[in-house]
Amino acid sequence: MKQLAVHTTSIPGLLVIDLPLPGDNRGWFKENWQRAKMVEAGLPDFGPVQNNISFNQVEGVTRGIHAEPWDKYISVATGRVFGAWVDLREGPTFGTAYWHEIGPDTAIFVPRGVGNAFQTIEAPAAYTYLVNDHWSEAAQAQYTFLNLADETVAIPWPVPLEKAELSDKDRAHPRLADVVPVPPRRT
Amino acid sequence: MKQLAVHTTSIPGLLVIDLPLPGDNRGWFKENWQRAKMVEAGLPDFGPVQNNISFNQVEGVTRGIHAEPWDKYISVATGRVFGAWVDLREGPTFGTAYWHEIGPDTAIFVPRGVGNAFQTIEAPAAYTYLVNDHWSEAAQAQYTFLNLADETVAIPWPVPLEKAELSDKDRAHPRLADVVPVPPRRT
Ligand SMILES: Cc1cn([C@H]2C[C@H](O)[C@@H](COP(=O)(O)OP(=O)(O)O[C@H]3O[C@H](CO)[C@@H](O)[C@H](O)[C@H]3O)O2)c(=O)[nH]c1=O
Ligand SMILES: Cc1cn([C@H]2C[C@H](O)[C@@H](COP(=O)(O)OP(=O)(O)O[C@H]3O[C@H](CO)[C@@H](O)[C@H](O)[C@H]3O)O2)c(=O)[nH]c1=O
Repeated sequence: MKQLAVHTTSIPGLLVIDLPLPGDNRGWFKENWQRAKMVEAGLPDFGPVQNNISFNQVEGVTRGIHAEPWDKYISVATGRVFGAWVDLREGPTFGTAYWHEIGPDTAIFVPRGVGNAFQTIEAPAAYTYLVNDHWSEAAQAQYTFLNLADETVAIPWPVPLEKAELSDKDRAHPRLADVVPVPPRRT
Repeated sequence: MKQLAVHTTSIPGLLVIDLPLPGDNRGWFKENWQRAKMVEAGLPDFGPVQNNISFNQVEGVTRGIHAEPWDKYISVATGRVFGAWVDLREGPTFGTAYWHEIGPDTAIFVPRGVGNAFQTIEAPAAYTYLVNDHWSEAAQAQYTFLNLADETVAIPWPVPLEKAELSDKDRAHPRLADVVPVPPRRT
């Protein structure tokens, strides 16, 4: 069994978290997020106010690439996904990509301004995440999006996107050259 | 599709929440917890610091009855469970029981001092919950437990407990007559 640990990646602030998953005759149990232990282990004290779950019925469901104005702490409750992230923040790391499989014993911390995407590789997958600001239909106009098929970042999707299950909205996002980088946070 | 709504029950403070579950070609999406909307709808602003997930492999996995020193906000990410609650707080409602099925479009708020239990009726079930204090191995000695098979509260488990999958710990909890009621919170 993994011990709780926090790892850095090639994208500044994007963290991979190993989660212990004790098992018994009933199944398994996990502390998916535990503020005190995780802050101690190196996770920011990000203050979630919303928990979302998306249920992805079949292999190849693909969602993204979305950079919203908040941090995300991501994991799965069942199934397995291929996660991919692209730094969309203004600056020298703009366009840097990273990918990592997420099973039940992995979580990912995605800082604000980093584009988030995933594809289901074991279905169904229940993808669950915590965010530190409230989503709204109206505010979506100001989010930053990148096309899943962008040729520059060239994410190696396990299921080719032509055969994948996407939303029409996600098919219409711009290529990297047309993305307006996310400016530093005004405080 | 259900609209967000909060309902009271026969146990004071135990709330049943209807969750909207918009669906599309990919699966479904839910705001499992959304602080602003849910406080507005009548949920206490309970301030979660921990998110736990238990994965229950087969039909008949049964966990409980546990009253820990914190509030719980419960739902499922996949599968379906039969949830049961028993008021273990000192006072006139001690021993009051309530049960309700939990599918993906239902959440339950369980106040501190109310015993919590469930049984998987559609497997596997991923049971996810938020709590407003940190669990610890050592503190478990002070929690309040009731036997799942208690004859007084007589919970109508869909799978008889002799055929169910339990932990040894849960088989050993006391009957209602031997439970020390949870005293009011010292503040
Ligand atoms: C993000 C969000 C969406 N919704 C509603 C709007 C739609 O009816 C439905 C699906 O919304 P969409 O905009 O298609 O969301 P989707 O493409 O799945 O992407 C979201 O969910 C993804 C994970 O499933 C995240 O990685 C994305 O960052 C997030 O934007 O859920 C909410 O009610 N609340 C929300 O917070
Ligand atoms: C509750 C809890 C448990 N654990 C560990 C200890 C064990 O290795 C494993 C399972 O713990 P148990 O004490 O058997 O937990 P379980 O019987 O499933 O009951 C817990 O989980 C139930 C839901 O699955 C809740 O309804 C109970 O209130 C909660 O106590 O997880 C943690 O690491 N953190 C926790 O918060």
